[in-house]
Amino acid sequence: MKYCSENKIPVTPIGARTGLSGGALSLYGGVGLSMEKFNRIIEVDTLNQQVITETGVITQVLQEEVAKQGLYYPPDPSSRGSCFIGGNLAENSGGPRAVKYGVTKDFVLGLEVVLPDGEIINTGAKTLKNSTGYNLTQLMIGSEGTLGIITKAILKLVPMPKYQLLMLVPFYSEEKACEAVSAIFRAGITPSALEFMERDAIDWVLRFVDDVTVPVEDNIKAHLLIEVDGNHLESLMLDCEKITEVIQQFDAGEILFADDDAQKNQLWKLRRKVAEAVKANSVYKEEDTVVPRYQLPALLKGVKEIGHRYGFKSVCYGHAGDGNLHVNIIKGELSDQIWNEELPIAIREIFQLCVGLGGTLSGEHGIGFVQKNYMDIAFAPRSLSLMKSIKSTFDPLGILNPGKIVPDGIN
Amino acid sequence: MKYCSENKIPVTPIGARTGLSGGALSLYGGVGLSMEKFNRIIEVDTLNQQVITETGVITQVLQEEVAKQGLYYPPDPSSRGSCFIGGNLAENSGGPRAVKYGVTKDFVLGLEVVLPDGEIINTGAKTLKNSTGYNLTQLMIGSEGTLGIITKAILKLVPMPKYQLLMLVPFYSEEKACEAVSAIFRAGITPSALEFMERDAIDWVLRFVDDVTVPVEDNIKAHLLIEVDGNHLESLMLDCEKITEVIQQFDAGEILFADDDAQKNQLWKLRRKVAEAVKANSVYKEEDTVVPRYQLPALLKGVKEIGHRYGFKSVCYGHAGDGNLHVNIIKGELSDQIWNEELPIAIREIFQLCVGLGGTLSGEHGIGFVQKNYMDIAFAPRSLSLMKSIKSTFDPLGILNPGKIVPDGIN
Repeated sequence: MKYCSENKIPVTPIGARTGLSGGALSLYGGVGLSMEKFNRIIEVDTLNQQVITETGVITQVLQEEVAKQGLYYPPDPSSRGSCFIGGNLAENSGGPRAVKYGVTKDFVLGLEVVLPDGEIINTGAKTLKNSTGYNLTQLMIGSEGTLGIITKAILKLVPMPKYQLLMLVPFYSEEKACEAVSAIFRAGITPSALEFMERDAIDWVLRFVDDVTVPVEDNIKAHLLIEVDGNHLESLMLDCEKITEVIQQFDAGEILFADDDAQKNQLWKLRRKVAEAVKANSVYKEEDTVVPRYQLPALLKGVKEIGHRYGFKSVCYGHAGDGNLHVNIIKGELSDQIWNEELPIAIREIFQLCVGLGGTLSGEHGIGFVQKNYMDIAFAPRSLSLMKSIKSTFDPLGILNPGKIVPDGIN
Repeated sequence: MKYCSENKIPVTPIGARTGLSGGALSLYGGVGLSMEKFNRIIEVDTLNQQVITETGVITQVLQEEVAKQGLYYPPDPSSRGSCFIGGNLAENSGGPRAVKYGVTKDFVLGLEVVLPDGEIINTGAKTLKNSTGYNLTQLMIGSEGTLGIITKAILKLVPMPKYQLLMLVPFYSEEKACEAVSAIFRAGITPSALEFMERDAIDWVLRFVDDVTVPVEDNIKAHLLIEVDGNHLESLMLDCEKITEVIQQFDAGEILFADDDAQKNQLWKLRRKVAEAVKANSVYKEEDTVVPRYQLPALLKGVKEIGHRYGFKSVCYGHAGDGNLHVNIIKGELSDQIWNEELPIAIREIFQLCVGLGGTLSGEHGIGFVQKNYMDIAFAPRSLSLMKSIKSTFDPLGILNPGKIVPDGIN
């Protein structure tokens, strides 16, 4: 970094290349800085329930390592088998368990960061609470490798819950499925996962994976995958009973309770493989829309209406408990011209809808390159110019991951 | 703010004046900006389990308002009956429930902020997840009114737990009490509060309050106040049994289980009134030390050893589950000269001890004016100069709450 800084060479930090916002693309050439040798878990601190890790460690590897000590690191994007902790930090990744446990930012106590000129700083401490100066830790998280390169992280862990109960609930209407989501929380239950898949998502993934079968009636339009976890099995059974009561009010079909770990893994595979299944079907664009939970039905309806108007099909699924809906827009038979020229206008409408509903552009994928020119929908010019000034404070030469987050033309 | 900016008049935002780090002191004169008319709770959004509030609202008033809807806002400093939400945001306040639920920063989804030149920005959104640009929300929280004036906040709520069980556990050794703390978590239990009080704390507060009586054996040296909460009474009873098993290994005395709400309120009053009891006894200085949970016994022992060496008495208590120990240094018979000249050197040693144990200067009170010249212990010069640059980005004229957080002499 010192060399690149002295010679004004652009540097783009690159993790496992699983990102969905183009954050790791070297737009201006220069150095692509691979983080894959930062692959050491430095210490699993069982006494304090923390882990200190380098950031090129694969998320699932870290999860499995701490699980050996009865500890749990909940944030796990669908790409957890290949993505890096560093990428999760850069994008503030979420995943299905965020709804109960929080996203990546909620687990970070401190960071080691290499600044653009090569100097190394440490943020935070090994403490659960910290009111000591400006929160540089939280400023780094979600900054997509534009302010510094995160080389180490101190992460909070929680005790591994003893039991997880999982159920797949079919609905005869997409909107009823979405409406059921906030009703579950309003009944006082906080599930450890609450995922939504519309009919196409489950159909496409069932065709894509070989070893999972789930019976789906013809007139089913959507599913919720609902998990509760904890240490007391009887309490969880009571929670499941209550959830069952609630969802019956939304015209649900027959609930499939996972019997054993094998079936749980199958159902989770079904959910985690949706993105790959879509990718295998068609060129697509994924938007990471997010709204307040109760607005989910309005978001889904609006997305479909915009699709109808602009002539595109979308496959929607995601972390419904967090109001986070992944909208996969399918290219299918659309012409390149429509795809390149009209679709951005339609996407702008989708984001305007999100913001109008109290939501924003990205729940967990980040802005990167792909969404940056929609940032004006979420933020006033002054907020964007503050972001640009923060960028300049950390990176006055503008060599670190240039061309990301802040839209073009901001002063 | 526009006027003060144009005329370069210093402005110090002032909440309820309950802060413990001197953040609301107008060091350079100018305008003391009272927030007390920003006292409107704008909307309790039961559908999304959120509240939108102005920031001059008293924390307990907000808690009681959302409780009417079965909702819970957990962060509650001991001053909750008089402190403002805005002050909690400015200092990133914690309180006893942080150990399970998190601190103020973990409940903030978005903010309305008046910048030093009078322009108003909004950060965040009404969403539980957000990866949309630099996290200006988290940068504002804990910035102690130095970057902008927070006028509105969107806060996340959780369902009110149905049951809370509370027990007061006496120990024959302070250090054993501290050792028991991390053992409880390692047994897989996450209490909703885990508070520590050394003998003097409980004695002083029993003399200070009229209506609370608790029998304390002569040879008891410390207490833990332990609470568990949730919706299933039987699970909580099992948790309490497990906690009881764990603490027996640390030479505990006879546990007092609170029988009813009246007794729970008495025990909580005991804990919440310690600071006032100390204040009524003597001039004192309070340090808000924080270390990784397992290092609590080493911190307590070190603080006492430093006190012994410098000749001061301290009364220690606090949020043990978070490793957050409030060290109240008692002036008592100490001369003004020792108090003013030697004590700062002793405090420096205490903070060096904290940082050496993986901790930092403040868990929940902030740095403000009182701790700012110890910041070099926790941060390298480069980190401090980054903080100063961030300050200049938001407040180029340096009119907003000058003289706080960043130590003197940083470039």
